[in-house]
Amino acid sequence: MGKVIYEELKPLFYPKSVAVVGATETAGKYGFNVFFNLVSGGFKGEIYPVNRRVDKVLGFKAYKSVKDIPVDVDLTLIVVPASQVPSVMEDCVEKNVKTCIIISAGFRETGDEGKKFEDEVISIARRGGIRVVGPNCMGIFNTSINLNVLMAAFPLDLSTFKGKISFVSQSGNLGTNMAVWGFMRGVGFNKFVSSGNEADLTCEDFIEYFGYDPETKVIIAYIEGFKPNSKFPKLAKEITRKKPIVILKTGATEAGAKAARSHVGAMAAKDEIVDALFKQTGVIRVYDVEELFDTAVALANQPLPKGRRVGIVTGGGGWGVVCTDMCAKLGLHVTPLSRETIERIGKLLPSYWSKSNPVDTVAMIDPVAQFRCVEEVMRDENVDGVIYLGFGWAQNILERFKNSPYVGKLDLSIFDRLIDAECEVARKLLSLIKETGKPVYIATLASNAPSINILESNGILVYPTPERAAKVFAKAASYKLYLDKLKNVKDKEKLGSEAN
Amino acid sequence: MGKVIYEELKPLFYPKSVAVVGATETAGKYGFNVFFNLVSGGFKGEIYPVNRRVDKVLGFKAYKSVKDIPVDVDLTLIVVPASQVPSVMEDCVEKNVKTCIIISAGFRETGDEGKKFEDEVISIARRGGIRVVGPNCMGIFNTSINLNVLMAAFPLDLSTFKGKISFVSQSGNLGTNMAVWGFMRGVGFNKFVSSGNEADLTCEDFIEYFGYDPETKVIIAYIEGFKPNSKFPKLAKEITRKKPIVILKTGATEAGAKAARSHVGAMAAKDEIVDALFKQTGVIRVYDVEELFDTAVALANQPLPKGRRVGIVTGGGGWGVVCTDMCAKLGLHVTPLSRETIERIGKLLPSYWSKSNPVDTVAMIDPVAQFRCVEEVMRDENVDGVIYLGFGWAQNILERFKNSPYVGKLDLSIFDRLIDAECEVARKLLSLIKETGKPVYIATLASNAPSINILESNGILVYPTPERAAKVFAKAASYKLYLDKLKNVKDKEKLGSEAN
Repeated sequence: MGKVIYEELKPLFYPKSVAVVGATETAGKYGFNVFFNLVSGGFKGEIYPVNRRVDKVLGFKAYKSVKDIPVDVDLTLIVVPASQVPSVMEDCVEKNVKTCIIISAGFRETGDEGKKFEDEVISIARRGGIRVVGPNCMGIFNTSINLNVLMAAFPLDLSTFKGKISFVSQSGNLGTNMAVWGFMRGVGFNKFVSSGNEADLTCEDFIEYFGYDPETKVIIAYIEGFKPNSKFPKLAKEITRKKPIVILKTGATEAGAKAARSHVGAMAAKDEIVDALFKQTGVIRVYDVEELFDTAVALANQPLPKGRRVGIVTGGGGWGVVCTDMCAKLGLHVTPLSRETIERIGKLLPSYWSKSNPVDTVAMIDPVAQFRCVEEVMRDENVDGVIYLGFGWAQNILERFKNSPYVGKLDLSIFDRLIDAECEVARKLLSLIKETGKPVYIATLASNAPSINILESNGILVYPTPERAAKVFAKAASYKLYLDKLKNVKDKEKLGSEAN
Repeated sequence: MGKVIYEELKPLFYPKSVAVVGATETAGKYGFNVFFNLVSGGFKGEIYPVNRRVDKVLGFKAYKSVKDIPVDVDLTLIVVPASQVPSVMEDCVEKNVKTCIIISAGFRETGDEGKKFEDEVISIARRGGIRVVGPNCMGIFNTSINLNVLMAAFPLDLSTFKGKISFVSQSGNLGTNMAVWGFMRGVGFNKFVSSGNEADLTCEDFIEYFGYDPETKVIIAYIEGFKPNSKFPKLAKEITRKKPIVILKTGATEAGAKAARSHVGAMAAKDEIVDALFKQTGVIRVYDVEELFDTAVALANQPLPKGRRVGIVTGGGGWGVVCTDMCAKLGLHVTPLSRETIERIGKLLPSYWSKSNPVDTVAMIDPVAQFRCVEEVMRDENVDGVIYLGFGWAQNILERFKNSPYVGKLDLSIFDRLIDAECEVARKLLSLIKETGKPVYIATLASNAPSINILESNGILVYPTPERAAKVFAKAASYKLYLDKLKNVKDKEKLGSEAN
């Protein structure tokens, strides 16, 4: 699996030289965005703007045609009106360009006329052995080599967002929005593709490439629909043995939305099939953008829980109840703790603590004592992972006090001590996860605390609600149990063949 | 309904004089938090710290006992160890204090012993005709008079967060966290109560008070359980005719959580009863904190949709699909638009637009043209309200460009023009909502745009995902249809009596 596509897409994701046909200095144009992103992203390869009307773009010598570029071109971006795309593609064939991304719209998505036009462009590309992304797509990025050729206005410094998650989206608008949103939340990406009309390369091809790509640990996708006879089921089953695939799949198609009332029935039916397909192939299905990133980041950076048994540690009773509720709804078990764990925690908390799971640390403000409770629960053999609620408050409180004119010369040093202690706890949590091989999913309404930064910069996202932490636990546990089932089948098969 | 409780709780929510027993200058103590919040919140009434050991607290003359305070005391906060509470309560009775909030813990929540102790304290209070909040609660606030007596470290300026939503929470920790989270998101509150052990005043009492309170337009609550023979069903049915009640109800109790595995079954059963009860009484049930605030703010600040027919306007196809999916799942109808609307929108968009609902403005960057599409859909008689996806991007883009060293002297004035245009659109949207009497629910991944600030400062929250906007539409429509059903029944009854 994947070897051929892996070789074919190397010049796309790891080009040595990139041309942008339609590069311009006019802000607000897509040809500006793409070229600006390429130049400002930190890409170390060769860059060639193609523009008939000017000599330079952002300081780079401009060429009249890709044919005039003095070196081999691995990747050409096409950002000119649709009517000019066939002739640009002819030039690309002549130049022996290896891969093209057609940003331009005005093809199949506009109707039958556009479809013919699209077929023509692709047939030119095929003649030259060029693999094509799009048309009507929004480009790609690859943080490994600081390559950013998105048409979205996106001049973020990719080098600060490197990660292990690769992402293909069938909607450019939604995909680039989601990528920006992920970046804003500190999600570390590896590669991104907006697959557009998929006239040549399809979302399945990119999933296959990511499956083979050693830099991708988790594959995520936004999918509206697969083409008939898709290779997806076979592909997914093979890939999910090695790395997780998390998919946000909408039931409707854009065409289907035209008859909104009547398509609802069709959608529901399709959705059941999708559910069954994903379940059989080990694909993790999510239902919104938040869940997509929450799950992907957890899978990329934390061990999988061995099963569905959850330990909850909470600074306040209400959050524990909310979290227990959500866990129960999701089929997780807020499991009884061992007698030994109860005894050990008893030594850490006031006598009137709950003596059960969730462990309510009854508004104790000492983060180290709270962490000791987390540690005891993590080490309990009845627990597959911990949800830890309430974290990082001291910084928020201190900031509010500091901004108040009423504080005067009061001694606020207790908060500095608490903040230091929380940071120490954050570092200890990272070690504890490694040592026990169990995950800790954290939720708090606090933000901006240095302790939270320590966790997030190490790939442990801190969620704003207990529900979101519980959902991540459930997804990760289901995936682990899927893998175990596969392994059992394999072991049995092996046992069977040994017995023969 | 409510008249008696309304009079009894006036000194609690609108005290002229407040005493804090246990007020201190030691940061990190709850007696500090409560007194600090009271002093720094901007309360204009009289303030009296009670502390045996010092002469002054934060510049206010301290008294040895409430009995020594030279004026009548409407409200006394008790923030001393549980063992001292009975004698403090005796002092309050002697002083003829009208209402008390017992912050102190160590009562019923610690077991039978504590329960007896709690009963004793309440019986002293009853003797003096004192109404009590708590014990084991986290206090209250009332933004109408800048009264903040929370034990949470919460020195926010309440005067900037005034609003029409009042909130009672059976969990202090969860409630105050949620209130802080709401404040951070710009949710405007009126009153908040953490009801604690509810030894005297219960969550039902506060809901009843809010029902009668003219400053409360929407009531929200976090509820873990009602007491036996609760007046809630009768109360809720009466109040929801006049104003919405939105409740986050957990199925479990804290006690129930003790046997986590076994309580799951019980929980599920209880939950069905709660669902039925809420449905019959017109209470809007939500399932997490985000949904609570999203729904409450929409109900407080926008007209209700007349039914389930949704118009969607989106800047990108993918978001429209996601939104259509979620609407269909929630029983909303992404309804066909009238022929006239389709024709009018056709004049605004490129020829290849979808000609259906969702209206995809096909990546047009002009916000005024987008708004014109929203306007046409709003005026369509087949539509009860609009979900508008994609807003406020220009500011985000401009900021990113401005922070880039590669921009140099490029002309970025187009973004300033777009930002101005978006602000104009935001103001027009506000008028359009008023004029048509239909709601617009907005989702965008953009943030910090001046146009978004215009909307949010006028009570129109901008959600980060289409799903959240769709959920709000569904809740608001259900409530409206509940009210219509009541009205129909009433009309029929009236008709019946006229016929007699």
